[in-house]
Amino acid sequence: MGVQSKFYGLPLKAERVITRYRSGEFFENTKDVVATEYALTIYVNDGEMATVVCSPEYMEDLVIGFLSSEGVIRSIDQLKDLQVSTFRGTARVRTSTRVNFNQDFYNKRYIASCCGKSRQTFYFFNDAHTAKRVDDMFTLHPDSIFRLIRDMEKSADIFHETGGVHIACLADRQEILLSRSDIGRHNALDKLYGHALRNNIPLHGKVITFSGRLSSEVVLKVAKIGVGVVLAKSAPTALALDIAEELNITTVGFVRGDSFNIYTHPERISS
Amino acid sequence: MGVQSKFYGLPLKAERVITRYRSGEFFENTKDVVATEYALTIYVNDGEMATVVCSPEYMEDLVIGFLSSEGVIRSIDQLKDLQVSTFRGTARVRTSTRVNFNQDFYNKRYIASCCGKSRQTFYFFNDAHTAKRVDDMFTLHPDSIFRLIRDMEKSADIFHETGGVHIACLADRQEILLSRSDIGRHNALDKLYGHALRNNIPLHGKVITFSGRLSSEVVLKVAKIGVGVVLAKSAPTALALDIAEELNITTVGFVRGDSFNIYTHPERISS
Repeated sequence: MGVQSKFYGLPLKAERVITRYRSGEFFENTKDVVATEYALTIYVNDGEMATVVCSPEYMEDLVIGFLSSEGVIRSIDQLKDLQVSTFRGTARVRTSTRVNFNQDFYNKRYIASCCGKSRQTFYFFNDAHTAKRVDDMFTLHPDSIFRLIRDMEKSADIFHETGGVHIACLADRQEILLSRSDIGRHNALDKLYGHALRNNIPLHGKVITFSGRLSSEVVLKVAKIGVGVVLAKSAPTALALDIAEELNITTVGFVRGDSFNIYTHPERISS
Repeated sequence: MGVQSKFYGLPLKAERVITRYRSGEFFENTKDVVATEYALTIYVNDGEMATVVCSPEYMEDLVIGFLSSEGVIRSIDQLKDLQVSTFRGTARVRTSTRVNFNQDFYNKRYIASCCGKSRQTFYFFNDAHTAKRVDDMFTLHPDSIFRLIRDMEKSADIFHETGGVHIACLADRQEILLSRSDIGRHNALDKLYGHALRNNIPLHGKVITFSGRLSSEVVLKVAKIGVGVVLAKSAPTALALDIAEELNITTVGFVRGDSFNIYTHPERISS
């Protein structure tokens, strides 16, 4: 397998000269820092799979997390080579076995009655085959929830400097173990997933924190990674909660000040 | 053309029973309201094009905005029929002429040296053919910027109730003309676009406001709609600014309190 690199000589942020307006006055030639975006086209055994727009760091992890999440690879052993070319903006993946990469199914809709109470919901075709019930039982103290969310925000400089990225962290009950930022909501989660797979990180008792909203896609990613608790600063959607209920994931949202909401599987949260 | 309907008998929000934690205490059986997500699969002349996950209102406008934005239709006259089936979760589109819908190009990468200062940037293939320079010149007063952002937030009940949606508005220099909310960032903009196309709304002197971040995709949508000023509550990315510079769009971000940042084409903002 190719070598991981965090940096590619590509900047994560860029300086721009702007005009700031404050209290009735224009201030010209003010400097500001913004996050960069980078388009990476992923080829699997010479077939073009997708173009992801991302923050250009940890791109190997991003690709591995993305391919696993989409069900293209089932295990890290299937990966023979992975080369990111920053000149071409490509990631070229070779697998040792024939992989389940079928353009006809990629992002195709799949209707499944997967939820309790006879609710009908949907997964994309690949999701139905890669998102599984998470049976990891443990309890998390409310104080840990506040601490992990606070530490997540401290962990990402680019978040504070640019205001333009999402943060996802892998944590245990005490502290943040890994923090990834990305301009794309799901990329930050894919980078965690790729890292966990490459390094065989045990997922028992682990928690994921997320700076954004809990959409169905975020909950599905958490299920694919195999983590039982997700903590978010913002709101969930109804479908995200149906999926979390079914896949046995504890969802905590609106972690702000001294309060939070537990939407599903509250049995994992206890004083 | 089929008839537009705002409501489809599908709820935009759902009640959930949650556990709230506040000031050291758990409050079980608390009620909370969350936004719903709905998967809509779009077929064009019987070919499956894409599945969009959206808030289930104004779905005809969403489909029209999406198809125009992707370059599938070039004018509203090409649309012969559009039927949304909430039973099947599909939108079936018929066009009067053969359309430029080519799965091989959809979301394929397109490299173009489109920006000044010899910067290289990318568009997706369809973007390069649908996003044009916006030559609408007019000036907007700083007070209008604060008022429009304030009115945008007042305009969307579901935003306040659920915290889970984005808002995009079409405005003139005085007031909000149209407000759309969606759980998907780009859907709210596509709903505006679809409405403007169907109703032949003149875009001279118009402004778009957006509740989220200014990514390259958001700026591209604004260019496709043909509006010269975009106001956002949050941060832009570097690529979004390169594209805005090139396409002659004024980008204003971080509109908060009594201040904001003008990132590109400040000539349209003046006291």
